[in-house]
Amino acid sequence: MEKDKKKVTFNVDKSKNFSKWFTEIIQTAELADLRYNIKGFVVFQPWSVLAMELMYDFYEKAMQRKGHKPYWYPALIPESNLKLEAEHVQGFTPEVFWVTEYGDNQKFEEKYALRPTSETAIYQMFSIWIRSHNDLPFKTYQRAQVWRHETKATRPFLRGREFYWLEGHDAFANEEDAVKQVYEDMAITEEVLHSIFGVPFVFFERPQWDKFCGAEKTFAADTITPDGKIIQQPSTHFLGQKFSKAFNVKFLDENNKEKFCYLTCYGPAISRMFASVIATHGDKNGLRFPFEIAPIQLVIIPIAFEKNRAVIEKAKKLRGKLCEKSYRVDIDLSDRKSGDKFYFWEMKGVPLRIEVGPKELAEEKLTIYRRDTGNKIKINEKDLFYFIEKTGKEISKNLKADADKNFKGVIKDAGSLKELKKALSLNGLARANFCSIELQGKKCAEVIEKDLHASVRGKRVDAEEKPFGSKKCLVCGKSAETVVYIGRAY
Amino acid sequence: MEKDKKKVTFNVDKSKNFSKWFTEIIQTAELADLRYNIKGFVVFQPWSVLAMELMYDFYEKAMQRKGHKPYWYPALIPESNLKLEAEHVQGFTPEVFWVTEYGDNQKFEEKYALRPTSETAIYQMFSIWIRSHNDLPFKTYQRAQVWRHETKATRPFLRGREFYWLEGHDAFANEEDAVKQVYEDMAITEEVLHSIFGVPFVFFERPQWDKFCGAEKTFAADTITPDGKIIQQPSTHFLGQKFSKAFNVKFLDENNKEKFCYLTCYGPAISRMFASVIATHGDKNGLRFPFEIAPIQLVIIPIAFEKNRAVIEKAKKLRGKLCEKSYRVDIDLSDRKSGDKFYFWEMKGVPLRIEVGPKELAEEKLTIYRRDTGNKIKINEKDLFYFIEKTGKEISKNLKADADKNFKGVIKDAGSLKELKKALSLNGLARANFCSIELQGKKCAEVIEKDLHASVRGKRVDAEEKPFGSKKCLVCGKSAETVVYIGRAY
Repeated sequence: MEKDKKKVTFNVDKSKNFSKWFTEIIQTAELADLRYNIKGFVVFQPWSVLAMELMYDFYEKAMQRKGHKPYWYPALIPESNLKLEAEHVQGFTPEVFWVTEYGDNQKFEEKYALRPTSETAIYQMFSIWIRSHNDLPFKTYQRAQVWRHETKATRPFLRGREFYWLEGHDAFANEEDAVKQVYEDMAITEEVLHSIFGVPFVFFERPQWDKFCGAEKTFAADTITPDGKIIQQPSTHFLGQKFSKAFNVKFLDENNKEKFCYLTCYGPAISRMFASVIATHGDKNGLRFPFEIAPIQLVIIPIAFEKNRAVIEKAKKLRGKLCEKSYRVDIDLSDRKSGDKFYFWEMKGVPLRIEVGPKELAEEKLTIYRRDTGNKIKINEKDLFYFIEKTGKEISKNLKADADKNFKGVIKDAGSLKELKKALSLNGLARANFCSIELQGKKCAEVIEKDLHASVRGKRVDAEEKPFGSKKCLVCGKSAETVVYIGRAY
Repeated sequence: MEKDKKKVTFNVDKSKNFSKWFTEIIQTAELADLRYNIKGFVVFQPWSVLAMELMYDFYEKAMQRKGHKPYWYPALIPESNLKLEAEHVQGFTPEVFWVTEYGDNQKFEEKYALRPTSETAIYQMFSIWIRSHNDLPFKTYQRAQVWRHETKATRPFLRGREFYWLEGHDAFANEEDAVKQVYEDMAITEEVLHSIFGVPFVFFERPQWDKFCGAEKTFAADTITPDGKIIQQPSTHFLGQKFSKAFNVKFLDENNKEKFCYLTCYGPAISRMFASVIATHGDKNGLRFPFEIAPIQLVIIPIAFEKNRAVIEKAKKLRGKLCEKSYRVDIDLSDRKSGDKFYFWEMKGVPLRIEVGPKELAEEKLTIYRRDTGNKIKINEKDLFYFIEKTGKEISKNLKADADKNFKGVIKDAGSLKELKKALSLNGLARANFCSIELQGKKCAEVIEKDLHASVRGKRVDAEEKPFGSKKCLVCGKSAETVVYIGRAY
């Protein structure tokens, strides 16, 4: 569809005005169309869908490698299921879309929730399937959409009333195994979101007042936008026995004694991760993609081909060869000027551009442009595959290293509310002593929320941090139990 | 999860009692669980999900190769959209699930349909996106679930209130291109459903009284169950300008004149195709899968490994090697007897079983069992990859040839209602002279429907058939315009 488009211009400084950058790139690169006529719902367009399908693929394979089996559960959940776990229903009811009738005003006896998340659909099946300790661990996931009637402002990919995710749901014989799973979920996040998608984050144990509704403990990955706002990425939850008691998920242990399972759940949202991918890697000329998840990895631009038939033949032959090697490749034969083509595909974030012109043809060389560095080099045509293989990896590595560097810079220590205010004004995550992330700390968190419009994200999972300096909570001044991170959430 | 299961028994004669076979294999092979607590909704289990994901992959790639771009459209459609095309709303309203409220009894101003199909969601976007003849053809598809409150009895995979499909939606500048697309859709069906999935069918132009609601013409692939019932597989529709007028899908032609687009849509249902895959290829011992869409392609059974450590090492090494070559492979280390393992994986339909025991180890050979033929042979270990490559193709080819042969046998000529009755009693498709598939033929079709509980499926697309014998309609006796096929639909 791009083929015959007019000249596209994109030049927005991401670091100066991220919000404008994000809005404009979504429109210019045709990632999502906001003109669908239901509030909070968008149409995802091919360029984002192709990337998100690749992201799904990496994520699903990682889940499967760790022993999770794929299921497809119904999108509808009876209201009575939702009500079985008291905290869960309380937390989710305000956001539920309800199916109440069918056909010509025929009411259902009971209304159905359009899945906001699937605990209450899945655990009733667990209670049927799980019988003995031999069935455990029972590890599952599904690829699905969820719907939530968000009251906060929606924004494509970041927060929508409909989004695309995976949800992992696992059952275990004991607490220890369930806790291990929560750590495995965090390791999967590292393996995919960081190592492949190149998006850095920190996992926090959330304060008790900010848990998933129905969980004993919640661990969530926070990443950050270029303007210093926090985005919550995958979270994983230790559910303990709350849901297994509500849904009667029991097993017979080795001594033939009936016990309740320990459950965990994990929710990586692909559409939101896509938001972080583009926010993290994009630059003032548009998108940049890690090589593995680029919708198109290579674009071939034939130069001056109108006058030289051999150029176009060569370009098509190249495309054929690259397709054979399973690269995702396109060729731009539109009648735009070469410069406009360069510009367009840079904006789209294609990692490598191959230029073939009369000169290249004569020399048996190819000119290659790297989107991540902006460097242009000439290579011998016979070295092409080796070059792509090597450079593809370099591009992903380079984008990730850049992102990691930026991320490290956003964490600042704050010893007082004044310092916290300053740290937050610099955009990023403040590190501070805090009385407690148990319920007794809630009041102090509310002060921060009210006075500074910031939230306590919890304590780091990857390091045991001891209170520093005064060792006093920066709000109440009492002895600090812990070190927390504070920031402004998107 | 299968690993520690007890002995599984399956032995149902598919040709004698297909209904029982279908019900039992779904349960025994754990394809779908019917115990979800909403009528007509089931849980799809890993073994079917893995196969259906592979099927999606083949189908999506075929759609993309033909120039269709992937989109994700919202699952909700405002009621007012549905109402824009009169025939469409009339046809679909009785089946729509309606979202009418959110949260705590908050009513929406307008109710939303849970997509039963997406014409009325998509074409409003077409009216925004399509501006000029340069934008055409505009070819799109989405992978999605749809929901229909079916009044007919539901059956897993065959007919559910929630099912998984792809829907292609295309816009063209003229009628000719749109008609070509309808033929391309049929070619894609042949390329995937027949050539890869091994399921034979005939495409019929449906009679005017049996069209998709809002279409000018409908073409649908009919396949057949082992007990002679017809299952409709993908259908493709020439929508003409009905929807483009309703949704204002216009373009400026070469002379700057505004015109309405011609639209087509195409709906291959993956979950229903899965039903035909298992119904077509299964046998009395259970499932059989074409090699390309088998959830697991090879299962390794180590024989007597409790006594011989080297056997298990060899089996694991083999698995590693096969995984490296991207085969889908499992190894059965459960404590079941080998015979029970054989039986279990045959029931699951794994195309190739590799047995490794002390004997094989000594001889550097492997014993291989082919699920499709039931043959067992010994091969040199060093020939394994070559053997798999070759045999995988043979298996798919063999299953397809078998299916084609069976399918050919189900068509019988019927020169009179008496002969039609007889032909239908033999199960299958009857071929008969018929007055017309235009609306004037509807009365004759109703006679057949009422007296014989059979339906007129339409006229073949792949061959121009002239009335034969008496050349008179087998119902009204008037001169027959056409030859139709008649059968009992599932």
